[in-house]
Amino acid sequence: MNANESLEKKRHTLAHLLAAAVLELYPEAKPTIGPAIDNGFYYDFEFPADKRPAEADLKDIEKRMRKLLPSWKEMTGETVKLEAAQARFSHNPYKLELIEDIMVKKEPVTLYTAGGFTDLCRGGHCEAPAKDIAPDSFKLTRLAGAYWRGDESKTQLTRIYGLAFGTKKELDAYETMMKEAEKRDHRKLGKEMDIFEFDDDVGPGLPLWLPNGAVIAEELEKLAKETEFAAGYVRVRTPHIAKDSMYLKSGHLPYYEDSMFPPMEYEGGKYYLKAMNCPHHHKIFAARPKSYRDLPLRLAEYGTCYRHEKSGELFGLMRVRMLEMNDSHIYCTEEQFASEFRAVNEMYLRYFKIFGIEKYVMRFSTHDPKRLGDKYVDEPALWKKTEDMVRQVLIDSKIPYVEVPNEAAFYGPKIDVQVWSAIGREFTLATNQVDFAVPKRFGLTYVDKDNKEKTPLCIHRAPLGTHERFIGFLIEHYGGNFPLWLAPIQVKVIPVAEAHLEAAKKVDDSLRAAMIRSELDTSNDSFGKKVRNAKTSRAPYFIIIGEKDLAAGKVTLESRDHGQIGQLSAGEALARFGTEIQERKAS
Amino acid sequence: MNANESLEKKRHTLAHLLAAAVLELYPEAKPTIGPAIDNGFYYDFEFPADKRPAEADLKDIEKRMRKLLPSWKEMTGETVKLEAAQARFSHNPYKLELIEDIMVKKEPVTLYTAGGFTDLCRGGHCEAPAKDIAPDSFKLTRLAGAYWRGDESKTQLTRIYGLAFGTKKELDAYETMMKEAEKRDHRKLGKEMDIFEFDDDVGPGLPLWLPNGAVIAEELEKLAKETEFAAGYVRVRTPHIAKDSMYLKSGHLPYYEDSMFPPMEYEGGKYYLKAMNCPHHHKIFAARPKSYRDLPLRLAEYGTCYRHEKSGELFGLMRVRMLEMNDSHIYCTEEQFASEFRAVNEMYLRYFKIFGIEKYVMRFSTHDPKRLGDKYVDEPALWKKTEDMVRQVLIDSKIPYVEVPNEAAFYGPKIDVQVWSAIGREFTLATNQVDFAVPKRFGLTYVDKDNKEKTPLCIHRAPLGTHERFIGFLIEHYGGNFPLWLAPIQVKVIPVAEAHLEAAKKVDDSLRAAMIRSELDTSNDSFGKKVRNAKTSRAPYFIIIGEKDLAAGKVTLESRDHGQIGQLSAGEALARFGTEIQERKAS
Repeated sequence: MNANESLEKKRHTLAHLLAAAVLELYPEAKPTIGPAIDNGFYYDFEFPADKRPAEADLKDIEKRMRKLLPSWKEMTGETVKLEAAQARFSHNPYKLELIEDIMVKKEPVTLYTAGGFTDLCRGGHCEAPAKDIAPDSFKLTRLAGAYWRGDESKTQLTRIYGLAFGTKKELDAYETMMKEAEKRDHRKLGKEMDIFEFDDDVGPGLPLWLPNGAVIAEELEKLAKETEFAAGYVRVRTPHIAKDSMYLKSGHLPYYEDSMFPPMEYEGGKYYLKAMNCPHHHKIFAARPKSYRDLPLRLAEYGTCYRHEKSGELFGLMRVRMLEMNDSHIYCTEEQFASEFRAVNEMYLRYFKIFGIEKYVMRFSTHDPKRLGDKYVDEPALWKKTEDMVRQVLIDSKIPYVEVPNEAAFYGPKIDVQVWSAIGREFTLATNQVDFAVPKRFGLTYVDKDNKEKTPLCIHRAPLGTHERFIGFLIEHYGGNFPLWLAPIQVKVIPVAEAHLEAAKKVDDSLRAAMIRSELDTSNDSFGKKVRNAKTSRAPYFIIIGEKDLAAGKVTLESRDHGQIGQLSAGEALARFGTEIQERKAS
Repeated sequence: MNANESLEKKRHTLAHLLAAAVLELYPEAKPTIGPAIDNGFYYDFEFPADKRPAEADLKDIEKRMRKLLPSWKEMTGETVKLEAAQARFSHNPYKLELIEDIMVKKEPVTLYTAGGFTDLCRGGHCEAPAKDIAPDSFKLTRLAGAYWRGDESKTQLTRIYGLAFGTKKELDAYETMMKEAEKRDHRKLGKEMDIFEFDDDVGPGLPLWLPNGAVIAEELEKLAKETEFAAGYVRVRTPHIAKDSMYLKSGHLPYYEDSMFPPMEYEGGKYYLKAMNCPHHHKIFAARPKSYRDLPLRLAEYGTCYRHEKSGELFGLMRVRMLEMNDSHIYCTEEQFASEFRAVNEMYLRYFKIFGIEKYVMRFSTHDPKRLGDKYVDEPALWKKTEDMVRQVLIDSKIPYVEVPNEAAFYGPKIDVQVWSAIGREFTLATNQVDFAVPKRFGLTYVDKDNKEKTPLCIHRAPLGTHERFIGFLIEHYGGNFPLWLAPIQVKVIPVAEAHLEAAKKVDDSLRAAMIRSELDTSNDSFGKKVRNAKTSRAPYFIIIGEKDLAAGKVTLESRDHGQIGQLSAGEALARFGTEIQERKAS
């Protein structure tokens, strides 16, 4: 049993314990269902309208759970007859409905008991709760409304949420992380820092990047373009729409239609907003005859795609309908595949270093041979070959990875990249996929050395994911304190008093002439207020110019993250910024 | 009478002369209509199927025109009775139909006669053709099919085209220009140089930018971004779609609907592809409260817009359905307007200098006071004020301009920029418009010094027009020989023989490390073939590395446009390229 399974059992057991405690304090409550979740557990109850617990009552329930826990020496299950189960829960219509379902599915009816409390359950608990669960490793957090079976037409229940981890230390760490995550919430900081905005007339899930957000997006693109130029990529640009014939060819229609925006009826045909860039790139590959000398061909584009997401699932920049993708498709021969795939993974690692991403893992999804020709394209030899190559690349590169069977794309094995932000939250950012099916559908070929026409392999990759999600991640990761090269405002120039404005303006002009995003404070505010405003702006550097500076022909430099730096010449400050920006240093 | 009117009269007269000559040589021909056009004239005839002239016959017809011309001493018009006209053209059903139309409109029927040839005509000819028209200032160029009244269901006629200018010299210059334009045709060079491609599955009018085209687009964007950063613009990024409510607010729906792509029916509403960026920018302005301190606010975006153009009117990159626009909207107070507008015009001039555009004129379109409240927004004082300011800016800046009454936008006066390519062809590229209507419709306001809410003026401007049209223009302007900073391949590195490949690779690597788009010839081709290939690539520079170079530790540099430069060190070559690129020198 691994750590995850053990934790899930604890959480599941705690849901039972919660129900037991609630029933002692609220005998009229009717327990319904109570599963383990990602960070703990919950249980949904029906309470009489006048006897519902309030948030303030959670402490008492929690106390009662702790009081009961020592008596839960063991937890045992038994299979019972249908009638016995129905008799036991005759006063609880929810449980009776659940028993009904079990009956329909012809599954055995099982009951689990601990400390005298019995619940209808499929199992998966600690065997010895009193021993296995530390009494300080869990807590109840909040109440919420929930409909029976998630159906708005049914009874509204009261859900009680609890957190649970292996130890108190882990629980505390989680709570600290969540508090920090709340402070760093990308929606909150995104508004505060004027990074993005939504507008009803534009539409939900379609962010407008305000100037400060556009700066970050452009810096990311600059990084990607430089990195990709050095890695031998070429760039292309394609329309945001195409005719249905293209997506019928690629197979996105009808299989992916639900994730696409509906078509525009135009000139007797249908045009779709693109939900991915690959078909357009395939068309560019096909636009000119290709020979083995042209491969590997690495086509890159910052293409904006549009995907349908249910409005209830939209979430800040994390779940949107517009995706500005740092996309690329690498067309290569089988011989070139391993080194190309490896180069892509290594590009990820270089990016992680730049962004200070220290914890990451690659999820390597493979096919299931039983599903060939059904879920997966029926090319057993190519599956084996590419999966072996991908695995070897991961091993050779000493990249941490986990192998996940039966989760590949239909056209080949893939790697999803999970990264953890500075405060320890997990994000799925990027992807690196092998495709040996779609190039054939598009009739893509190259003439090989032996003068034969062959179909290239295609690698789909997007190391920085989408701007939306990556910038959302970065806002949390940096807590809004972007390093110099990414900061919307890089330097605030502050004259101590009006007499220093002219000199300050000169410094500001020289910084802007060097394409540094400096901002001069021309207000009549007091010096103290100007400094406070500069700090609020989260600019990584402030340049202060006062009497002493004027006299010395220098400026005073202060860093957002490291405090006072001291007096230096304007030229020295400029050189310092230049190096820090060019090297894309962490702050 | 200005030169243009006089030329149009000549061309119109020559159409008559063509009809007279045709009737002498083809007595059974039935003349229909024959107008003056941009570069000459044409006339549509019905010929009996077995007696149609071929291209080879044009010389004879032209000769006959020259023979008749001296007898066309004067051209006179007369108004005749309907019946008289009908009797005269009783054998020509086309002319009878035209007479019918004149009758319906209750206009006078006029006939024009010269040298014994009489035609139904509204007038506008030379009074003394023999004297006014130089016999060598015109020529017949080609035949084409044309339907009577442009209607495919009607008779197919034969159109004879002619060129006509004031003098033989002007005619020759035009022909030379057109021959050169044909060589430089952006569709031909665009294909040859792998700049763009169309694809049936993507859709007509929707170019795919191949890697070489994407390079040019990115360099143009870099130029614009640098220029705009220096001019105090900030950048934004907005979705390519929006809900109908936005375009109802802006007034584009329903007034501009015919130029937009049809909507997507989505979530019970309608979403449109954007045909312009202004409404999205207005939303960004509105996203945060504004004070006079925030103005002028210059929002810039490389936004891709989509517009419906009739498929018959699509033409290479010149008439497309996708428009990558270097767009910006400047929000300012009335006091700031003149200097902002002037700064925009000056930005145009800086661009012209970079691109070597020597001939240009600004078309200043003003309103017609009689159409206030109908064609133009009813703000007489603001019209007068802004037009006066715009005119003053043009005069002060000494920019060549023409004033065009009654062609303003409905929301304010505008300037369209006409430029001439290196071979003398005219293009309309860019626009600079004042808008004092739409900001009000969007409820845009700022708090002024007096604490009152006011509506800003908005300047719409796009100095580099769209990528599509501008790159199409540049292909012709440079004849495909792009200056170093814009060239898709900047440097070709050529080892004389295999022994020099390693040294050549080092040079290529060092250039690419400096972000120079160099390409190493690794082929086994002969040296001569390699040099020929380099020339075909139109790279502005070739670096050649042979025995003598290796011995001297140098390279040999050759320029596409200036030939041999000589031996220098690789570092010196790199520095030379760096400067030339950074200064965006003409080649």
